[in-house]
Amino acid sequence: MAKRRVGVWLIGAKGGVATTTIVGLVALKKGLAPDCGLVSQLPEFSHLELLGFKDLSIGGHEIRQTTLFDEAMKLHTVSRVLDQELLSRCKTELDRIDKQIVPGTILNVGSTIEKFASSSLRHRVETPRQAIERIQSDYRSFLKSQQLDQLIVINLASTEPPLDDSSLPARWKELERLLDRPAKKSPLAASSIYAIAALDLGLPYVNFTPSVGSAPPAICELALERETCHMGHDGKTGETLLKSVLAPMFAHRNLEVMSWVGHNIFGNMDGKVLDDPENKKTKVRSKDRLLHQILGYHPQTHVSIEYIESLGDWKTAWDHIHFRGFLNTPMVLQFTWQGCDSLLAAPLVIDLLRFTELAARRKEHGLLTFLCCFFKSPLGTPLHDFSQQFQVLKEWSRK
Amino acid sequence: MAKRRVGVWLIGAKGGVATTTIVGLVALKKGLAPDCGLVSQLPEFSHLELLGFKDLSIGGHEIRQTTLFDEAMKLHTVSRVLDQELLSRCKTELDRIDKQIVPGTILNVGSTIEKFASSSLRHRVETPRQAIERIQSDYRSFLKSQQLDQLIVINLASTEPPLDDSSLPARWKELERLLDRPAKKSPLAASSIYAIAALDLGLPYVNFTPSVGSAPPAICELALERETCHMGHDGKTGETLLKSVLAPMFAHRNLEVMSWVGHNIFGNMDGKVLDDPENKKTKVRSKDRLLHQILGYHPQTHVSIEYIESLGDWKTAWDHIHFRGFLNTPMVLQFTWQGCDSLLAAPLVIDLLRFTELAARRKEHGLLTFLCCFFKSPLGTPLHDFSQQFQVLKEWSRK
Amino acid sequence: MAKRRVGVWLIGAKGGVATTTIVGLVALKKGLAPDCGLVSQLPEFSHLELLGFKDLSIGGHEIRQTTLFDEAMKLHTVSRVLDQELLSRCKTELDRIDKQIVPGTILNVGSTIEKFASSSLRHRVETPRQAIERIQSDYRSFLKSQQLDQLIVINLASTEPPLDDSSLPARWKELERLLDRPAKKSPLAASSIYAIAALDLGLPYVNFTPSVGSAPPAICELALERETCHMGHDGKTGETLLKSVLAPMFAHRNLEVMSWVGHNIFGNMDGKVLDDPENKKTKVRSKDRLLHQILGYHPQTHVSIEYIESLGDWKTAWDHIHFRGFLNTPMVLQFTWQGCDSLLAAPLVIDLLRFTELAARRKEHGLLTFLCCFFKSPLGTPLHDFSQQFQVLKEWSRK
Amino acid sequence: MAKRRVGVWLIGAKGGVATTTIVGLVALKKGLAPDCGLVSQLPEFSHLELLGFKDLSIGGHEIRQTTLFDEAMKLHTVSRVLDQELLSRCKTELDRIDKQIVPGTILNVGSTIEKFASSSLRHRVETPRQAIERIQSDYRSFLKSQQLDQLIVINLASTEPPLDDSSLPARWKELERLLDRPAKKSPLAASSIYAIAALDLGLPYVNFTPSVGSAPPAICELALERETCHMGHDGKTGETLLKSVLAPMFAHRNLEVMSWVGHNIFGNMDGKVLDDPENKKTKVRSKDRLLHQILGYHPQTHVSIEYIESLGDWKTAWDHIHFRGFLNTPMVLQFTWQGCDSLLAAPLVIDLLRFTELAARRKEHGLLTFLCCFFKSPLGTPLHDFSQQFQVLKEWSRK
Repeated sequence: MAKRRVGVWLIGAKGGVATTTIVGLVALKKGLAPDCGLVSQLPEFSHLELLGFKDLSIGGHEIRQTTLFDEAMKLHTVSRVLDQELLSRCKTELDRIDKQIVPGTILNVGSTIEKFASSSLRHRVETPRQAIERIQSDYRSFLKSQQLDQLIVINLASTEPPLDDSSLPARWKELERLLDRPAKKSPLAASSIYAIAALDLGLPYVNFTPSVGSAPPAICELALERETCHMGHDGKTGETLLKSVLAPMFAHRNLEVMSWVGHNIFGNMDGKVLDDPENKKTKVRSKDRLLHQILGYHPQTHVSIEYIESLGDWKTAWDHIHFRGFLNTPMVLQFTWQGCDSLLAAPLVIDLLRFTELAARRKEHGLLTFLCCFFKSPLGTPLHDFSQQFQVLKEWSRK
Repeated sequence: MAKRRVGVWLIGAKGGVATTTIVGLVALKKGLAPDCGLVSQLPEFSHLELLGFKDLSIGGHEIRQTTLFDEAMKLHTVSRVLDQELLSRCKTELDRIDKQIVPGTILNVGSTIEKFASSSLRHRVETPRQAIERIQSDYRSFLKSQQLDQLIVINLASTEPPLDDSSLPARWKELERLLDRPAKKSPLAASSIYAIAALDLGLPYVNFTPSVGSAPPAICELALERETCHMGHDGKTGETLLKSVLAPMFAHRNLEVMSWVGHNIFGNMDGKVLDDPENKKTKVRSKDRLLHQILGYHPQTHVSIEYIESLGDWKTAWDHIHFRGFLNTPMVLQFTWQGCDSLLAAPLVIDLLRFTELAARRKEHGLLTFLCCFFKSPLGTPLHDFSQQFQVLKEWSRK
Repeated sequence: MAKRRVGVWLIGAKGGVATTTIVGLVALKKGLAPDCGLVSQLPEFSHLELLGFKDLSIGGHEIRQTTLFDEAMKLHTVSRVLDQELLSRCKTELDRIDKQIVPGTILNVGSTIEKFASSSLRHRVETPRQAIERIQSDYRSFLKSQQLDQLIVINLASTEPPLDDSSLPARWKELERLLDRPAKKSPLAASSIYAIAALDLGLPYVNFTPSVGSAPPAICELALERETCHMGHDGKTGETLLKSVLAPMFAHRNLEVMSWVGHNIFGNMDGKVLDDPENKKTKVRSKDRLLHQILGYHPQTHVSIEYIESLGDWKTAWDHIHFRGFLNTPMVLQFTWQGCDSLLAAPLVIDLLRFTELAARRKEHGLLTFLCCFFKSPLGTPLHDFSQQFQVLKEWSRK
Repeated sequence: MAKRRVGVWLIGAKGGVATTTIVGLVALKKGLAPDCGLVSQLPEFSHLELLGFKDLSIGGHEIRQTTLFDEAMKLHTVSRVLDQELLSRCKTELDRIDKQIVPGTILNVGSTIEKFASSSLRHRVETPRQAIERIQSDYRSFLKSQQLDQLIVINLASTEPPLDDSSLPARWKELERLLDRPAKKSPLAASSIYAIAALDLGLPYVNFTPSVGSAPPAICELALERETCHMGHDGKTGETLLKSVLAPMFAHRNLEVMSWVGHNIFGNMDGKVLDDPENKKTKVRSKDRLLHQILGYHPQTHVSIEYIESLGDWKTAWDHIHFRGFLNTPMVLQFTWQGCDSLLAAPLVIDLLRFTELAARRKEHGLLTFLCCFFKSPLGTPLHDFSQQFQVLKEWSRK
């Protein structure tokens, strides 16, 4: 196999998850970090020729004005993660990558996210088509300047509010016609704009956020037409991961879950955006869906997400599961999960990059459902039981 | 198929788990209880012709002097479980079953358990062989008086202290020769005596406790020679169930478990017996084994079991799992499990009865490893991941 | 001292707290219950000649159609509290008390509470003055029929939504003039109507709920004019009790509370009413106030209350306290509180009855601030530290 | 007041608590740290002329060979506390203080602690009197070289195993005679040796550890004879602090505590020493004493302390409190406390230094019982209720 040059393009490239992903990739490249937390490094997958960390090019879109090093230092200072010495040793590289990060689009991202955008972005007027063309030109420049054979686009931007997608046409041809409408009248938001831009060029696209992205049928059709692949959505990092692990236990033991309450508190940027009830809706929907599908009935559920500034990037979840045992005896399982959001997400982003890159090499088209274990709301499959999802990944790897 | 008559024989027949199992069986027979908590009632197994609740005969061995109704009322009063009205409606039947429960053996059960035994039992002197013959005569009488085609023996007695089994011969022929030694010099304890008595008569034996039971190779050989089946040991009801569900998650996500601490408190008879450090050893060993096998390495672990009288049958476990995420970031999962011990165990006992009865009908011999999902320390298989264990049960059911 | 006959009049007399209070009073009278949970039975107060349980008369107002025994059995069945045998032994007495409970008023209680009212109440049209007069006639009849020297009125009804009290006059004379307005235009809600009715007759009034009750200055003036006493509001039973105990610890150790998050879940009637965001506002305000007053600064706080049906009367609170230690080190205290709401509240109601009755005998007028340890939002005092509040009660008792 | 020069002498000067105390004192002196966590900086005490941070001299005894900076960096690396930049800015000062730290004594400290000692210390043979004289000469040299008017000695060394003190004479004269016995036959351990050395010179002594220290009556007599003051023992930093805050709540509400279980896990040096069952005994006794004294009865209690290496200096406690409410209803409070041990203890050490220095200036002799709020087992007072203890401190400050 001739040496292939691969790049990764991160949407929301200076957010907490992306910053940590980039620091992690640089540290892995330099041999400064162990591979703890990387699924793709498990012995189960050691026979696969997955992308190495050495020759990867990194670029991305961002709407705020900041630097990767400043964002990384903020994680260190506020949340006590990312060792200061490690950051010093990665600084030169981070500064170099900064230059490959260009302005994104805030088309229909909602007023809360808009507030964080640089003023030039806030004043830009584009139709969806113009935004797509601008973004495609960014992708093309990067491919060319870095002499890449492949570029994987991964969405790590803040959660958009839900759009009314009832009027969205089911076929690409029809959707394509709407791209010249003014932005405000467009049924598409930024996450879909980035997806269309990538897929239309034949580039793989992965949506790690709860935003719509490439989910609409018309965009799925585009992916098939362009013979490329994509997957989403919403990375399964913490509380929902536990739900997908614990709910099958109750199902397999025939213990009836009467109610499942989950309270999430955290203080990062993501938290600030989700504090807007509109944006929160998108997220809660994604966190709550799976219980019914695993259990086969609807227990009473409650999911809350609250922005608590002092926690920084440390997400704490308290879940209270009230279940009925034999002879109607009520019992309780409670858990608290204290994890650092960006450090839970970043290795999964790297895993998705590597597995998607291999799938693209293997000429897989359309939705990569074998990646379902990474997502809260995996597209194209009803499978939510984490253990079964992991089996699916293992089986794919054996092909 | 001609109508078969089946019986179940419980060792420790008036302990908390057995009492609850019997109340449950009576209530199910009378249609007074839902089947919540019964694995064998899941849709996955509805195609199997499992034993019904109607025509089951119940008998057993016990070393204490008490009645089933008194024990059930104690659970109601002390632990606030088992509805008083339900118990009133089952009383006649419970009193009838009381008469089928006969004195067991306290051979090598350790001084803590001996203290609970009736004085006639404490003064009885028997060699292991004499005990086996007496027990076999109990089994035979029950088979005859109830006109049974089959009798499943299930050990629910208190946990025995570990015996030194290094001198135990590996072949049945040789072990058989040791049965005439005086009890004190015998390498066997009561749980194995009951097992030998059953298997030697061709009766299936299930060990729901952490005691040795039928685990020694010589006794496994006996089961094969007599063409019967058996399985053990230590019912997986609570904290360990959660370990077998959560540990695979850490493994599949490549998150290194640095330490896993589990503290268990409860106030039932089992707790009193486990308060004796000797008996506790047997249990802790069983609760701690699986982490290494699932994770592939040895995190620091600590398991404690403490007798806290006020809790009655309510077992509360607090587990603290300290794990290392990406870039060496330490994170924490904690859970508390508040379950009523007897009500978690009883449905599994009924499930084991039904699946074992079917396996016996299917002429399966030796260890029933397909039942591994029910045990903390399943014999004959290294499988500890609960989700995979459940798949094994499902695959067996499809045969 | 000549034998005095005392009665207690409960508003919301068949709700969970009142039912439990009445069952408790009957059980104490019959010697069927220990005095565990009763502050007034502490050795500290044994020198006081507090009201005994023997000769107490019980009556009340209620808006729903049900019986005390049915409500008590519901607590038994749904929430596994109130022993069935105890209830059987109290039934005759409960049925007798049922007859002393008459229809209350739903004036401005909000649409959620209105839904629970009997249809005759829903169709009644009264001005506030008419309602007061009707209620006073209920109080008078009871005083007369039971030959009472004293009647203490205690509000245990569901939480009302907050009313706009900006237009409420500060003087009783002026407020009195508004009583003839039609109900909809009245700035008063039921809790205040009951309070005015009682105080105007010189009867002591205690508000155990977060509703306004006797808090307005004009009503306080009425109490002084009629030379009677009153106190409120919002019984401090669980999570807030813990806040008032733990917050002083952080203050005395100079540990800065950065955030204090409290999530409350429960499934009783109170929960159903508080599920209405309007009614919840009144409650949350009351639960959140004290932190600032104890700490002297405003940490970020979040209080949620959610109706989770399966929990019945069992209130579970999870609190997460994020605090800053020496050298800016962030640390965490979490607690979960699993208490049965009615059984936490009922003994306090009995305590308030007894202490208030003594205060009335001692001719105390106006707000009984010495009772502050019983309330989330004690009227007339800024004291929230529970330990200091208890000292105040002890000092009063020594007078 | 003429400018007084004061020093502090720390026993166990390079342990976690002492290192953090010294870093804290240096940081406060340089204005690099806020005063968060310091009780003595509360507004309640602002009228007192407490010792400032500027002119304090620091010295101490230590038995291990290490440097303050290395120990501080270990806390940073292993436990993620003590900011790296802060440490760099304090390094010069820490290195300077290192030179004022001299070898201590390991007389009767038990084999676990002995293992950590430098080999020269392990081979030194001294009678108690010789050890006292050597230590006094260390104190004198420091007083002289630093030109001090006062030196406060504070014991922060690891917990010693309990000694049999039944044969200890009650009078100083008699105890004094035993000092020439060989160490092995001496009823005194190192903590008492340091105490005698200090008090005999008229220097105040504070015992922050659970070791015996100055508690024996004969040593108390010495303090009075030399007209100096002392206090102990066992700093109340975490779980026990919470017990002394929560237990009064149960007492004041007449809620019967049926059982109180506390599990403590942590991974620092202290944890390693307490992993020796002998040393643990001393500690557990100190943590468990107060419940009986606050509640007035003996609930079942269980306290465990386990060394879990991965936790470093982060102590996690889980407490489960099972209590009986009204009508015998069992309820549960659970808490988890995640605090960094050294950072909880260090500010209290500084507070004790400052309050003790003022008490000495005020010519107070004997036990300083007004400091009881700082100790798990305060000498000379039965007061354990934290809130009342704090009142005692406040009252003293007003004198």
